[in-house]
Amino acid sequence: MPDSSSKSSVVRFEALQQFIARAFVAVGIPEQDAQKVAALMAEADLQGSDGHGVIRLPMYIKRIQAGGINKTPNIHLVQERPATAVVNGDNALGHLVVSKAVDLAIEKAKTCGVAWVGTRFSNHAGPASLYARQPLQHDMLGLYFAVGNANHLPPWGGMDMLLSTNPISAAIPAGSEPPVVLDMATTVAAYGKVKAKAKRGEMMPEGWMIDRQGQPLLDPNRSNEGFLLPIGGHKGYGLALIVGLLAGTLGGAAMGREVVDFNADHETVTNTGQAILVLDLNAFGDPQMFKASVDHLVQDLRQSERLPGVERIWLPGEQSHLRRQTYAQEGIPLPAALHADLAELAQALRIEPLASSA
Amino acid sequence: MPDSSSKSSVVRFEALQQFIARAFVAVGIPEQDAQKVAALMAEADLQGSDGHGVIRLPMYIKRIQAGGINKTPNIHLVQERPATAVVNGDNALGHLVVSKAVDLAIEKAKTCGVAWVGTRFSNHAGPASLYARQPLQHDMLGLYFAVGNANHLPPWGGMDMLLSTNPISAAIPAGSEPPVVLDMATTVAAYGKVKAKAKRGEMMPEGWMIDRQGQPLLDPNRSNEGFLLPIGGHKGYGLALIVGLLAGTLGGAAMGREVVDFNADHETVTNTGQAILVLDLNAFGDPQMFKASVDHLVQDLRQSERLPGVERIWLPGEQSHLRRQTYAQEGIPLPAALHADLAELAQALRIEPLASSA
Repeated sequence: MPDSSSKSSVVRFEALQQFIARAFVAVGIPEQDAQKVAALMAEADLQGSDGHGVIRLPMYIKRIQAGGINKTPNIHLVQERPATAVVNGDNALGHLVVSKAVDLAIEKAKTCGVAWVGTRFSNHAGPASLYARQPLQHDMLGLYFAVGNANHLPPWGGMDMLLSTNPISAAIPAGSEPPVVLDMATTVAAYGKVKAKAKRGEMMPEGWMIDRQGQPLLDPNRSNEGFLLPIGGHKGYGLALIVGLLAGTLGGAAMGREVVDFNADHETVTNTGQAILVLDLNAFGDPQMFKASVDHLVQDLRQSERLPGVERIWLPGEQSHLRRQTYAQEGIPLPAALHADLAELAQALRIEPLASSA
Repeated sequence: MPDSSSKSSVVRFEALQQFIARAFVAVGIPEQDAQKVAALMAEADLQGSDGHGVIRLPMYIKRIQAGGINKTPNIHLVQERPATAVVNGDNALGHLVVSKAVDLAIEKAKTCGVAWVGTRFSNHAGPASLYARQPLQHDMLGLYFAVGNANHLPPWGGMDMLLSTNPISAAIPAGSEPPVVLDMATTVAAYGKVKAKAKRGEMMPEGWMIDRQGQPLLDPNRSNEGFLLPIGGHKGYGLALIVGLLAGTLGGAAMGREVVDFNADHETVTNTGQAILVLDLNAFGDPQMFKASVDHLVQDLRQSERLPGVERIWLPGEQSHLRRQTYAQEGIPLPAALHADLAELAQALRIEPLASSA
């Protein structure tokens, strides 16, 4: 593999956001929307969700240029109850649709205690935890479910790829500790991680994917010849299916055979579905007491006696939390190959390239 | 191992329910409550949840006799919002507390579209799917989360057993197909399955448990010398933690160090927590269209091309559904060792023993 795959450049969050925004504006996305999506995409890289941040920009741009995204959407409510709603994204960039859904869920949870908002005609919206985290600042907790944008998972025992990695994220506020933030694909590896391995020129570990003969598939560049494995065998298959029913079918979005592979097809409307659940801590007691309980629990877990060879016990979201702090100060590392792709994109769009700070 | 472990007797659902009810009444549970709990416990065995049905009766009885259960509880609301509530179970049998929570959630979801009800001072309530299924008949779907009643799971990389198997269940209505019902511990095996293996005199497969040296633990009678493994490694640890925070901490119930091992301690109030989420299909569109979509998806999955050696692709809950039909007609098989335990219990309580139909 080329040396470039192991080197990386470093970019500032602001520089990354502005570059992404420039790219979107160059293909006709209104400035305000471009900035909003760019901020969320840069936040993905800031927390180390490197399969879901700026790495997706070239594909988003390709889809916009191919007419597969509505640049001036009318994102609107389809149906509403005191604590639920369905948002029709009108084929907008997914980040815009889901942000609207989360804002609405937070408003509804203030009154009702809980709220569930689903989306339809949305698109890929980046890492699940971006959205599960948004209620945290309101003394609320968030759960997020999404239908993945390409089917890489067959039913357990099967070979037809009818399911996606359908992620689950949950974000729970703590007091002095970082929030507990789970963000997981229901497969052993998310497809974004497969793409990131390919970009870095690395092989996949055994257990991520198998081929159609049931043999381990290790080369990420051959990922279209096999499928992902679910966590816990039949359990992960069940989870992926339930998440898809909740985030897709329930909101009237695509699921199963209807899911469009947005890696291969840049034009067809994906009708992506997501769902956000928000719970207001105030509806269950004193939020400060809740957060103190979370702190105690987190500290108990971290201080557990360790198995031989284990240096530290991590809480879900703790490593992302530390990366957010480090990368905000020192900049976000980008693989050289990705940086080169973005330079090419800048040239094609005739925009100012991404400035690296190192 | 003794021959008795492989033989089994067969009992009718009604006979099983009435036997369980007699046992509860004999130790002072009011008739109506005894019948309600007995019906749910027999339903657990009817669907093949053999780790959570009548196998638990001797322990429940022991706990009641030791004063660890409130026989005449005042189950009441602590806090309420339009779409949320916290139910204080007053240390009643868990089945009674969770049933009340589910009924309330169904009522609230009718108006609000979604509802979340948590419990505190509840107790072990049997298999999660019993409760996730209850909204189905109202054209609603259910998600259920619970804190397990003994910690067998350390944080990932750790040895202190601070987490339980904390199960997740989801029940999604279909049309002509059986409902899609997921009921899974966040560990590779539920502890109830370990107990069932012990009762049947069978060894556990590798991957269920490890000992404190990190070595595979295969003998279910040595289960107290090791701990369960989470599904997907760190992912299952994260799921178990999130489920515990939602079902335990959020509702003011025990979590982490506070969890009482009800296998070892029959007296201390467990303060068990559970949570039910109910979504009304009518809040998201036409329930008939939703169910038709589920049917199509189920059929696509079932008809998938299969890996070599796979005879049939199952949907989550499909095997339980078939068992419900078969066992209702032909009776419920009980291992001979369990039947002997129940005969002993009948003698001790001076009640009519369980009549087997074969």
